[in-house]
Amino acid sequence: MPHVYGDIHSGNCYKVKLLLTQLGIAHTWEHVDILAGATHTPEFLAMNPEGRIPLVRLDDGRLLAESNAILNYYAEGSPLLPADRYLRALVLQWQFFEQYSHEPYIATPRYIVRYLGNPPARQAELAERRPRGYAALNVMEHHLAGADFFVGGHYTIADISLYAYTHVAPEGGIALDDFPRIRAWLARIAAQPGHLPMPP
Amino acid sequence: MPHVYGDIHSGNCYKVKLLLTQLGIAHTWEHVDILAGATHTPEFLAMNPEGRIPLVRLDDGRLLAESNAILNYYAEGSPLLPADRYLRALVLQWQFFEQYSHEPYIATPRYIVRYLGNPPARQAELAERRPRGYAALNVMEHHLAGADFFVGGHYTIADISLYAYTHVAPEGGIALDDFPRIRAWLARIAAQPGHLPMPP
Repeated sequence: MPHVYGDIHSGNCYKVKLLLTQLGIAHTWEHVDILAGATHTPEFLAMNPEGRIPLVRLDDGRLLAESNAILNYYAEGSPLLPADRYLRALVLQWQFFEQYSHEPYIATPRYIVRYLGNPPARQAELAERRPRGYAALNVMEHHLAGADFFVGGHYTIADISLYAYTHVAPEGGIALDDFPRIRAWLARIAAQPGHLPMPP
Repeated sequence: MPHVYGDIHSGNCYKVKLLLTQLGIAHTWEHVDILAGATHTPEFLAMNPEGRIPLVRLDDGRLLAESNAILNYYAEGSPLLPADRYLRALVLQWQFFEQYSHEPYIATPRYIVRYLGNPPARQAELAERRPRGYAALNVMEHHLAGADFFVGGHYTIADISLYAYTHVAPEGGIALDDFPRIRAWLARIAAQPGHLPMPP
């Protein structure tokens, strides 16, 4: 069965746990402590030279990194990844948006506040990142004006990718009060069959 | 035929041009001037609320954004995107690496130097970004110790994604002198049949 190296409170890792749970894929989970340097030991770097989690060891021992690549791998053939070529490309479009325009400005502020204890030395950086986080949320709010989900009118891994850090954005000081469609969409995702909340 | 909104000197846009050319897919190309604000007009934002290029209008009028999503869409079924599920996931792994860990630290310095004229106000940012660019190059150099290409031993869109900004990294002040395997790989990519160089 797949073995996942992760931290359940990291949105990127939580994505993988949520998908495997909803697909009913049995797996083992190994907690990796980023702050203790566990992603930069020689042993870990031999598995993933980038030194990041999540990392999955497949049934056959092969390794796969990058949360959204892992989601695409496991969702293939399931209702969570459309078979249609254009819809699959749209799933990727939103996942690349998530990693490039959303994660650095919503997940990183949360990391600074929650994991690093909101140190004074990072306040200027927080002030620079948060407006771009709100810009990403505006793009999402705009899209949700005409759609219940991000791609094809159904729950897909594009929703999982965006849900992971959006639903905990307030932990990084990014408020969702002005985004009613995002809040309704978050509730819709949390109501999906087999949904697994991030532990408190 | 597909209509591409892009700037050929943007690596993200060049990726699309290179793939369409190598696959022999006829297309039209519309230059979009980022610095003149052409990605933030009401007309452009109506097509792509994120205000970024490349953006492709498909044959049937539907729109697709995000360079790597576009590559996956057009490469499907061609030799440039493996059919094997794991190899496809590895292509995505490297493409997410490219957008998250490479592009912001290699493309953005080039943008600051080449497009913005290397202004004094951005020097501190450049000094912060470049070491992370070198870190990304180290990951690539390490991988190329055991491989001629990034995935599956053959030229794929993972190579196109990484080639786009790596081959012009020196324009942003990131030298490739200490990366002999990357330089050999760049030469290998430029020697592929139907390769289209970025115009000077």
